[in-house]
Amino acid sequence: MTHPASQLDDIVHQRLRLGILAILVEAQEADFRFLREQLLVSEGNLSSHLRVLDEAGLVEIRKGFEGRRPRTWIRATDAGRASLDREVAALRELVARLDAANGGPPAS
Amino acid sequence: MTHPASQLDDIVHQRLRLGILAILVEAQEADFRFLREQLLVSEGNLSSHLRVLDEAGLVEIRKGFEGRRPRTWIRATDAGRASLDREVAALRELVARLDAANGGPPAS
Repeated sequence: MTHPASQLDDIVHQRLRLGILAILVEAQEADFRFLREQLLVSEGNLSSHLRVLDEAGLVEIRKGFEGRRPRTWIRATDAGRASLDREVAALRELVARLDAANGGPPAS
Repeated sequence: MTHPASQLDDIVHQRLRLGILAILVEAQEADFRFLREQLLVSEGNLSSHLRVLDEAGLVEIRKGFEGRRPRTWIRATDAGRASLDREVAALRELVARLDAANGGPPAS
């Protein structure tokens, strides 16, 4: 049996992309500025990770205006939600194995 | 408040390095071949991730022999264990937020 880390997918697992998808699943839709603030990431870095997710079909990006201000809205696609579900299932398994090795989760 | 993904550290979060540290914390010590089998990873790729962890002081690598066969043993340092603990704490928080947004963890 292989380790759960072998099931993780680099597209979704990369920490900022994981954060983007997690926020979009919580919030249904988020704008570019909100993602930047939540993830403490530069504009260029966020753009490049959004491009990876968009090209993989995991997010949809919509550009529009609010009043005269340009805004960019991002939401997860069904494939994006499914990818995040698989990622989270593998993370749960990884954490459960560590907890078992440590005799249970830490007291909180 | 920022998202827990902003607290993840790329050195430990990268999926193979996360797998390596998780295995080492479960197993105390592992050899190179065991890590390769558990993580389904090429020799070159495993070597390069071990080098990153070694240079960050998170693992110790010991080369020796078993009979006449050369073997490479790897173990986590105290800093490696502490880094994995921080990573797992951030992952737990990320998963808990998603569960809260979904009305609880999935039935298992």
